[in-house]
Amino acid sequence: MNAEIIAVGSELLLGQIVNTNARFISQQLAELGINVYYHTVVGDNPQRLKDAIEIAESRSNLIIFTGGLGPTKDDLTKETIARHLNKQLIMDEQALKQIELYFERSNRIMTENNKKQAIILEDSQVLPNEHGMAPGMLLDTDNHLYMLLPGPPKEMEPMFLKYGYSILRTKLHDEDVIVSRVLRFFGIGEAMLETEIEDLIDSQSNPTIAPLASDGEVTLRLTAKHNQKETALQLLDETEEAILSRVGHYFYGYDDTSLMNETVKLLNDKALTISCAESLTGGMFQQEITSIPGASAILKGGVVCYTNEVKTNVLNISKKTIEEEGVVSAQCALELAENVSKMMNADIGISFTGVAGPDQLEGKTIGTVYIGIFINGQPIHVEELNFGGTRESIRARSVKYGCYLLIKSLKRNQSAK
Amino acid sequence: MNAEIIAVGSELLLGQIVNTNARFISQQLAELGINVYYHTVVGDNPQRLKDAIEIAESRSNLIIFTGGLGPTKDDLTKETIARHLNKQLIMDEQALKQIELYFERSNRIMTENNKKQAIILEDSQVLPNEHGMAPGMLLDTDNHLYMLLPGPPKEMEPMFLKYGYSILRTKLHDEDVIVSRVLRFFGIGEAMLETEIEDLIDSQSNPTIAPLASDGEVTLRLTAKHNQKETALQLLDETEEAILSRVGHYFYGYDDTSLMNETVKLLNDKALTISCAESLTGGMFQQEITSIPGASAILKGGVVCYTNEVKTNVLNISKKTIEEEGVVSAQCALELAENVSKMMNADIGISFTGVAGPDQLEGKTIGTVYIGIFINGQPIHVEELNFGGTRESIRARSVKYGCYLLIKSLKRNQSAK
Repeated sequence: MNAEIIAVGSELLLGQIVNTNARFISQQLAELGINVYYHTVVGDNPQRLKDAIEIAESRSNLIIFTGGLGPTKDDLTKETIARHLNKQLIMDEQALKQIELYFERSNRIMTENNKKQAIILEDSQVLPNEHGMAPGMLLDTDNHLYMLLPGPPKEMEPMFLKYGYSILRTKLHDEDVIVSRVLRFFGIGEAMLETEIEDLIDSQSNPTIAPLASDGEVTLRLTAKHNQKETALQLLDETEEAILSRVGHYFYGYDDTSLMNETVKLLNDKALTISCAESLTGGMFQQEITSIPGASAILKGGVVCYTNEVKTNVLNISKKTIEEEGVVSAQCALELAENVSKMMNADIGISFTGVAGPDQLEGKTIGTVYIGIFINGQPIHVEELNFGGTRESIRARSVKYGCYLLIKSLKRNQSAK
Repeated sequence: MNAEIIAVGSELLLGQIVNTNARFISQQLAELGINVYYHTVVGDNPQRLKDAIEIAESRSNLIIFTGGLGPTKDDLTKETIARHLNKQLIMDEQALKQIELYFERSNRIMTENNKKQAIILEDSQVLPNEHGMAPGMLLDTDNHLYMLLPGPPKEMEPMFLKYGYSILRTKLHDEDVIVSRVLRFFGIGEAMLETEIEDLIDSQSNPTIAPLASDGEVTLRLTAKHNQKETALQLLDETEEAILSRVGHYFYGYDDTSLMNETVKLLNDKALTISCAESLTGGMFQQEITSIPGASAILKGGVVCYTNEVKTNVLNISKKTIEEEGVVSAQCALELAENVSKMMNADIGISFTGVAGPDQLEGKTIGTVYIGIFINGQPIHVEELNFGGTRESIRARSVKYGCYLLIKSLKRNQSAK
């Protein structure tokens, strides 16, 4: 079964809203093992919608519509489909009752055009709308399966999950289970990662391996299919093992985790507290760590030391270091990490100093960054990095790299014990 | 000119990412007065991409592609277009140099497949990529205009704004000048704002007035069109004046500014330095202020005081305050603001303390926030706020509100002088 998702609404073509519905439905269909070959967005125009339907019919057998089921004149999805397929539009008494009830409950007056929402395509199966008024519909002709869903995600998503998903499973007669897993990597580029596992990508069809790069990270999504769930999981395990045997050094976590999440988990596991001195990152590391609920158990606090004055007067960086090495230096990074950990009475101190731009600093080029790590009274690591990109991406990469180095340091520390 | 936007990438059809590029480009084209009739998403499959191109050619004369310009094998947008239009692919030396430079700067090893990104369509105009590697392209045939843009929004958006937009304007030979202006408001809801200016919205067609709410702010986009630029601007001025005479109290700036931007501008104008003590915001205020280039002239630094220990030991909050009032209190907010300004030797201290969740604190409900402001040795303001929403939105609203209060305080101070 091949699917196409058609979103109807001029507000999408004007850029007023993003088509998150297509994403949601695509995820669900991927889980069902249904290939989605196209997304289409078309405005509230009957001729162009009709054209889009004809194109979709020529290339897909499942066509899912979102939007255009509302009460106003420019909502015309079901009307256009009805004309196109020579179907009548009939009032659905059940749906009408639900709409009347909705108005009664919310103490509002029902206008005539609201009744329009209870009109459905003849021969279609109603998908009840439990979070709004317009019901969904499913129409099965000989050649195609048409599913009509409302546009607002708050109505569409629960409707699809409760009714759409299981209907599709039944139609598929699918006994297969689909499982997927995302492997996350840091410190290696997409091209390099793909080169390392090129033969695996080329030879695998079950699981499939899909790489994706964003914000300095690379992920691999593995998706396996089998009529036994255990076997599907085993297929994932085997492929994961083959991949990690080559690039495991850069692997840091699964699925929706992040480097900061893994850092917080590790610190919690080891019952270690942390503090941070931030120059170029200006609070970004701490902002991110505190965005994770429960950070208060591990983050004591820290200092944003944006000026040399604060570095010397508040964090006691020695004049010698600043004069001889500069604030953008390995020595300064180490002192910042040490002194902030003492000031905050924390097990760990991490520091960020560097040049985010727009100007050079101390003759160092934009993108030069030093990260210092101090654990339990010992300088553990200092790293010099050179990032390209904008001011914001230099800062964001620095924070990610800081997490990466912390994770490496803590794991190395562990294996040394 | 009618446009279609084709996004290329299986990750979109798998629901791994949302097609925000289509939204961005649609907004830009709407501003240019170009009708967008369709969005299409197609996977990394040459035959299906070719089919999508042919359909687009039959119904649109401007076709904008996003994605599929990367280094890996499944990136095939330009290859497919080349084959379809019988164009050669040629190495662009300028683009190659930029890619080599990118690797040199970031100290990474360039693999052979990265070179692929410097290959362009013959007869096309290169749109330089200033935030990544793959250049964009513009190809003008007799019947169609093809624009190829990279997939990552961080690369695509600045490329479109800097090069794509003006090229399209030239191609349009549009004699009418379109000018637009965004008015930004804080402290008033969208419904309330619309009610206040309902008659203006209903009666205006040039300029048009488009309200949009997001993240606690409301914006109005005014767009005017005239063959004389001066007249178009005058139309904007008149409408702006009419709007601000009613809701000017909540207005804080134009276009792409932000509350933080306006704060930084004001502090720079007044040559005042600032420092910050952040409890619930965990560094977010400082992270945002330092995201603005030139922040080093005004931000001295600050303290993230996530634990009571740091509040007492580092920021000297009195035991009496913590015991009698609690850390989530007006008194604590004022002391934090005062003490951080002294510690950092800054003209201004601003503090954030409150409950972001997931748990209550000191019996105070989630969303309770105190913001303290201390200017030139004087407590200027303390505000108790109650926000709804998630942990992250409570934090983000707090930071915005902090800026809003600072701006109000500084402007009030000024008029008092």
